Amino acid sequence: MQTLVIGLGSMGFGAAVSCFRNGISTIGFDLNPDALERFKTAGGQTVKSLDSITNVDCVLIFVVNASQAESVLFESQLLSGLNPTAVIINCVTLAPSKAIEIASRITNRGFQYIDAPVSGGAAKALEGRMSIMASASPQTMAKAKPVLDAISEHIFELGKDAGQGSQMKLINQLLAGIHIAATAEAMNLAAGLKMDLHQVIDVISKCAGSSWMFENRGPHIADGDYTPLSSVNIFVKDLGIVTQEATQQNIVTPLSEAALILYKRASESGFGSEDDCAIVKVLAKQSDIKLPGSST
Amino acid sequence: MQTLVIGLGSMGFGAAVSCFRNGISTIGFDLNPDALERFKTAGGQTVKSLDSITNVDCVLIFVVNASQAESVLFESQLLSGLNPTAVIINCVTLAPSKAIEIASRITNRGFQYIDAPVSGGAAKALEGRMSIMASASPQTMAKAKPVLDAISEHIFELGKDAGQGSQMKLINQLLAGIHIAATAEAMNLAAGLKMDLHQVIDVISKCAGSSWMFENRGPHIADGDYTPLSSVNIFVKDLGIVTQEATQQNIVTPLSEAALILYKRASESGFGSEDDCAIVKVLAKQSDIKLPGSST
Repeated sequence: MQTLVIGLGSMGFGAAVSCFRNGISTIGFDLNPDALERFKTAGGQTVKSLDSITNVDCVLIFVVNASQAESVLFESQLLSGLNPTAVIINCVTLAPSKAIEIASRITNRGFQYIDAPVSGGAAKALEGRMSIMASASPQTMAKAKPVLDAISEHIFELGKDAGQGSQMKLINQLLAGIHIAATAEAMNLAAGLKMDLHQVIDVISKCAGSSWMFENRGPHIADGDYTPLSSVNIFVKDLGIVTQEATQQNIVTPLSEAALILYKRASESGFGSEDDCAIVKVLAKQSDIKLPGSST
Repeated sequence: MQTLVIGLGSMGFGAAVSCFRNGISTIGFDLNPDALERFKTAGGQTVKSLDSITNVDCVLIFVVNASQAESVLFESQLLSGLNPTAVIINCVTLAPSKAIEIASRITNRGFQYIDAPVSGGAAKALEGRMSIMASASPQTMAKAKPVLDAISEHIFELGKDAGQGSQMKLINQLLAGIHIAATAEAMNLAAGLKMDLHQVIDVISKCAGSSWMFENRGPHIADGDYTPLSSVNIFVKDLGIVTQEATQQNIVTPLSEAALILYKRASESGFGSEDDCAIVKVLAKQSDIKLPGSST
């Protein structure tokens, strides 16, 4: 199963490495020469242009957003280099309506498509332990199983239609984005009340106020460490998708909108490439509070 | 250690029962005759007026809010019926500034005070397994230990000063209140997208979007069951305390404010005594979505 991984950022790199570690013949592609070089150094095979690939059975897409996904799929010669029944596994977080549209263009060309957004972060990607929220026909899922197994710990099979995987990812990002903002708001208030932030994490983690994000991102704020594991700009994009998709359906999402304002302000203030919990800096500035690690 | 429990609602009833089950001589009081009768039926001793009590060593306060706490403490003859070094354990969720004010009035009369808001819900209260976020001097904590041990599984000792326990509860309620609203927003969007709500809970519980409240309240919404375990009105009060306390300190809390609007609207719409996740009904109405268990 000749596999091509497009996009060798934090998630795509981990997926590509997991593929060849599991004995799958794997080629990596990225527009960024540094990303290509890093994959080569890790022992991976690379290609410099999508126009020169041939005989590919499976494509894993790990680019940043919908427009990049459409560009690699439809503005290159990629599809001409695929074998006739190739499977395209699209792991990009997309609006469900966009996933349906892309799937339709792919299947109209005779290829198979899996709507397959992922969750888990760079560390889990590198261990081949992502979670995949997948929707596709059982036959397509079966064909792609070796590749999916190589990169993931959990495969949630959410239905046969494109869009169903992306819907679940949308719900996850709504919650994750709000929970990071809630963590920031709680830690900023605690800092303003001169509380011991590490004690706050210890106690709240054992109480009903806890969340996966609170336990994961809270320590970043208490330590003043904004090294990006997942960046502010990811949630500018993903909560943007949530609120747009909801608005199109006339569904109200007031907390997502309140959280999105924080991510946008943080991005506009120059924190877009920092860890997503750097939105706390926006709250701290508005509240005139000094956070751990802050010089002002 | 003669102990008096004031307020025999869901939490106070559980605490009072836990006390006498642990061999502590316990009297219960509530203004509501039904609550008194229920405690008697459970084997508890009761008193009909706070003005008639004598020789009390320890008071546990489980009334609904600050004004009720001030009323029982300062507008009755309660303090005259206490032994000179009695300990008052105030388990009511209060603004930290209010906890400090009440503590000061109590200690000025020579009594000891523990700022001791609790977490855990009625079921845990009945099992003597609440969590207590306590602050008081080590001597006072030691004196009250038999009573605290009888009612709790975790005792977090957060400092020697009144207000420190209430600050931690404030942070917990900020997070809990936002997370219930996030759960409501996520489930409403999922319902609008025609997703299987039980599948959403199964998948998200294993992903980074999860929270204690999502896992606990999500099933209520998926089942359409709004039997109150903790009510909408509790969060009208508690997020009110969060936003007021933050505002007094010039600290911004945009997500708490967005969530508080939902709790207030739900209360105004007649859902105040339903389970707190009934705020989803406000979102569903605004979005014209039919939720499980809804007739419209």
